[in-house]
Amino acid sequence: MNLTEYLYSRLHQLGVRSVFGCPGDFNLTSLDYLEPCGLNWVGNANELNAGKFKSPFSEEEIKSHDSRLAGYAADGYARVRGISVLMTTLGVGELSAINALAGSNAELVPVVHIVGYPSTAAQKNQLPIHHTLGDGDFERFARMSAEISSAVTLLKDSSNAARLIDETILECLRSSKPVYIGLPMDLVRAEVDPSPLAQPLAVEKPTPNPIAEEESAVKMILDCIQAAQNPVIVVDGLAGKPHTLKSARSFVERSGLPCFITPMAKGVINESLPNFRGVYAEKASQPTVFEEIQTCDLILKIGPRATDINTAGFRTEMPHIETIKFEDDRVALRFDEFPGLSASGVLFKLGDALYREGSSSPTASINSRQFSDTSERAGSVSSASTFPSSFNGGGILDFQGNKTDKSAPLTQDWAWERMSSWLQEDDIIAADIGTSAFGTLWSGHPRGVLPMTQLLWCSIGYAVGAAVGAALAAREDEQKPQGSKRRTILLTGDGSLQMTVQEISTMVRRKLGVIIFVVCNEGYTIERLINGPEAEYNDIQPWDHKLLPAVFQAAPESARTYAVHTKAELEMLLTDPSFGPAEDSDDPPLRLVELHMAKHDAPEALHGMIEAIAHRKA
Amino acid sequence: MNLTEYLYSRLHQLGVRSVFGCPGDFNLTSLDYLEPCGLNWVGNANELNAGKFKSPFSEEEIKSHDSRLAGYAADGYARVRGISVLMTTLGVGELSAINALAGSNAELVPVVHIVGYPSTAAQKNQLPIHHTLGDGDFERFARMSAEISSAVTLLKDSSNAARLIDETILECLRSSKPVYIGLPMDLVRAEVDPSPLAQPLAVEKPTPNPIAEEESAVKMILDCIQAAQNPVIVVDGLAGKPHTLKSARSFVERSGLPCFITPMAKGVINESLPNFRGVYAEKASQPTVFEEIQTCDLILKIGPRATDINTAGFRTEMPHIETIKFEDDRVALRFDEFPGLSASGVLFKLGDALYREGSSSPTASINSRQFSDTSERAGSVSSASTFPSSFNGGGILDFQGNKTDKSAPLTQDWAWERMSSWLQEDDIIAADIGTSAFGTLWSGHPRGVLPMTQLLWCSIGYAVGAAVGAALAAREDEQKPQGSKRRTILLTGDGSLQMTVQEISTMVRRKLGVIIFVVCNEGYTIERLINGPEAEYNDIQPWDHKLLPAVFQAAPESARTYAVHTKAELEMLLTDPSFGPAEDSDDPPLRLVELHMAKHDAPEALHGMIEAIAHRKA
Repeated sequence: MNLTEYLYSRLHQLGVRSVFGCPGDFNLTSLDYLEPCGLNWVGNANELNAGKFKSPFSEEEIKSHDSRLAGYAADGYARVRGISVLMTTLGVGELSAINALAGSNAELVPVVHIVGYPSTAAQKNQLPIHHTLGDGDFERFARMSAEISSAVTLLKDSSNAARLIDETILECLRSSKPVYIGLPMDLVRAEVDPSPLAQPLAVEKPTPNPIAEEESAVKMILDCIQAAQNPVIVVDGLAGKPHTLKSARSFVERSGLPCFITPMAKGVINESLPNFRGVYAEKASQPTVFEEIQTCDLILKIGPRATDINTAGFRTEMPHIETIKFEDDRVALRFDEFPGLSASGVLFKLGDALYREGSSSPTASINSRQFSDTSERAGSVSSASTFPSSFNGGGILDFQGNKTDKSAPLTQDWAWERMSSWLQEDDIIAADIGTSAFGTLWSGHPRGVLPMTQLLWCSIGYAVGAAVGAALAAREDEQKPQGSKRRTILLTGDGSLQMTVQEISTMVRRKLGVIIFVVCNEGYTIERLINGPEAEYNDIQPWDHKLLPAVFQAAPESARTYAVHTKAELEMLLTDPSFGPAEDSDDPPLRLVELHMAKHDAPEALHGMIEAIAHRKA
Repeated sequence: MNLTEYLYSRLHQLGVRSVFGCPGDFNLTSLDYLEPCGLNWVGNANELNAGKFKSPFSEEEIKSHDSRLAGYAADGYARVRGISVLMTTLGVGELSAINALAGSNAELVPVVHIVGYPSTAAQKNQLPIHHTLGDGDFERFARMSAEISSAVTLLKDSSNAARLIDETILECLRSSKPVYIGLPMDLVRAEVDPSPLAQPLAVEKPTPNPIAEEESAVKMILDCIQAAQNPVIVVDGLAGKPHTLKSARSFVERSGLPCFITPMAKGVINESLPNFRGVYAEKASQPTVFEEIQTCDLILKIGPRATDINTAGFRTEMPHIETIKFEDDRVALRFDEFPGLSASGVLFKLGDALYREGSSSPTASINSRQFSDTSERAGSVSSASTFPSSFNGGGILDFQGNKTDKSAPLTQDWAWERMSSWLQEDDIIAADIGTSAFGTLWSGHPRGVLPMTQLLWCSIGYAVGAAVGAALAAREDEQKPQGSKRRTILLTGDGSLQMTVQEISTMVRRKLGVIIFVVCNEGYTIERLINGPEAEYNDIQPWDHKLLPAVFQAAPESARTYAVHTKAELEMLLTDPSFGPAEDSDDPPLRLVELHMAKHDAPEALHGMIEAIAHRKA
């Protein structure tokens, strides 16, 4: 077995089926081994033309013509499948992808980045080869990537390569961040011992918490909850990490305590739970949410991640409210701290204790009061796959309650609220930072919806690439029965789309029936709110997006375009049975919708966010 | 005067008129000072709409929606104007541009990269702000850029900022490589002392060579030339650097010795000189060129840069031929070396001596023989601005001599040869690495043609962005009389264009009448020659490029598209008087030509290059 086959086998074991990247002269030979290892990228042009596929995955082949876009796509794929692979070539390829990889680092997405290197001999002789600066330094780019990777491995000989590959991939899973493997051309076919493959890679389970300490922490926290009049849960960004996710969900469900999420935790908690209350982001919250938090007297904060956007300008600590923080390796009360105690075990036990109390003991008055409160709010909660719009924890407008003039122009808050009620369970929503992300993250999502956005890295154009990776990963999901495919919905802006428009070509090529909404509002509205509302630097060249499928030579039946200017038109589109659902179609068409909105219109949440951050700065 | 005004004034003094980049929240406020400082980017949307312009340069405003593309554009601008400026925002913006900047480093292009940073207070407090990894490390991205910059300066307070700015810009000019300036938001308006501006920045002139040593070197080299039967000049990549350029040109003209250029030196020497012989790239040379070099007995090599492509696999040294190397700070003969002796002074003196000999003394037999040889070869040399195709030093086919079947499909060698005779003096030719660059660099160029390509960095898609910067810089050239504008010609491939297609939108927006030739040959032909001639990873999604101007909403009269399949069609297009010249039009239209060619067809030079490199590897 050669080294490349070993590497690919490891990745295949972890569920990777598609590989992203660009061909380059230092990685071409390694690409030849993808297909034999059950990974998709390499195919035969003639077979493709003939419509025949060798493996069940051949249809899922993908590549991107731009390492940067491939980097975003790899990020999107990893968010669905748990890990992904990006293959680039030295220098030009890897540096094109480095912004996307830095984003994966910031947003905690595990991506294995394999970089094709010239031969070890050329490196040793420091040859001034193309794709370098010509100075014989072949480790320069790896040093750059080290700044945004949790591990960097440059393979130098085959004797220790298998071990290094295993350790690097494990570190990727452990850290949930990108890692970097440099693969020299002459090692692509070097022989390695395949025997370690018999033992699939798995992140070692964390050692369980010491029993006595855990019990002591649980008791202390239960006492706090009992003593509190209005205890609430705030689920934050790091709660979505593998180690904490299950326990956080279990705790929210079993405790029944009123639960808020921060913008970064969108997707972690099922919003149709009766105790779900909405999105909390300090001054950028809906007024009722803000008020509810201000009047509580205990916050149980799970997976805190206090970034500027997540906290609307770093006002996370409210000195008058007791806060208990649950972290990966620490549980902290105001005066007590349990370092080395992982949140997970504590949360499971707390949830169990509160569940028992809630169902058996009259002391659970607080919780039951919260329950009844919630069910009143929730109104017509149903288990149907269509999410009732009147139940909207974080929304700002009550869409169905208003008598809206539908011939009126489309507005941001109205549109996102309306879209929210059109969403289905398990939808994947890639949203670019700008009005799209702030629109969707603050509105209600049905159970199972996976939002993909970058609230820390904030690189516009990300969502277009991420949607490609996500749509592909969703199609590959072998556990889903045929006919119940997840939809991938892309929410982007006219400015963001201009960054990464090529990825629509990849959607066409790979028949990914993504539903694309492009907010057409003459440029960078989010920047207009910060500085230069009329400045020319916030304008863009207007595009006619409706022609894009034709440029990319989509077959007529495989792509549809729409232009929406009024509320009535959006209403008509979203209720058109031929537009939305993909469930009964194997090959849904690509749908591209222009949402025309006013240049300075923005979701209330975005206004609130920018005002809060500006206020904090001043 | 504030710090930003100081910085912009310095750049304006150096000839910068347009600034490239993307708006981002950490650089927005600094963008507000561009216009008042006579730099173009910021405008007023209403004024633009009304067609009124405040300054003679307002029309030249430019921005790109993608820092990566802006990086390529800045590179193209600097190659024409001598220096350029790129403005991005922390993290997302700068990392998107880092591949382009690494390319500028490899290709020795001076670009000042200004990165907008959060306030010094936010940095000091290590706040987990967006566009960072959230770990409070604000120097991470500067460390990454340091790997590909000749200087990195993070401004921290205003007291030393002016001095640091001056030193950093000087280093940019000195090294001819990118530099990095981090500008925190709170320093944008900090006051600085404007008095240093009275003294414009200028790179200190190199100290003249010690007279005795220089004379000794000149004498020794003259003796070598006299003793040689067939001395030749080979002008290489570094001869185009500012310190050497003039002396190299003077030496070639005054010595009259047969002169070859390497691919990287394309554009350094006037190819209509009678002693110009062609492009020398070892085994990837035209056979007659290869033979002439093999049979010479003395090579005078100016500005050697021995990269793999420039040498077709590192066979630069021919042990049987004496080689004298002229470098920036060293002149080296086989057994003698003059370190500390710059090439420039020596070359001027050598040229003078050989000129005197050639015109006065009977000992100049060698030179006069070379002259007559050359003029026989040169045939119909003329001073007309249209370059006669029969004079083609480096070409492979004699276009006019062949009776070509013009209904035959277009082929690579024929097309590039034909294009060569269509070129005009002073054209700017941005060519992407692939068949385009190998096609144009090996064919003849008229006097003054400026080729823009990346023979070391080799990042495909570069030329599309570079063409934007170049076209803008050409339009800004105040020394050119009205009506004699330089044409900017973009030669790219269908694969390369997919990387950076958005820049055509910028051409439309800024009315840059670039002439675009897109080789449509179903993907990455250069990669097919290296590995996987039929592999699916070398295919691309076919695009209908003719629709691009409509997507970008170009006015009907401002863009034209063409599809060329046969030799006859290309012939017809290039001889159509309405197609080519831009001289008598103020606002020439954008022209986009699809050149349809066979998937595996490639210029002979590219075949030769890949064979030579593969042979060397084996």
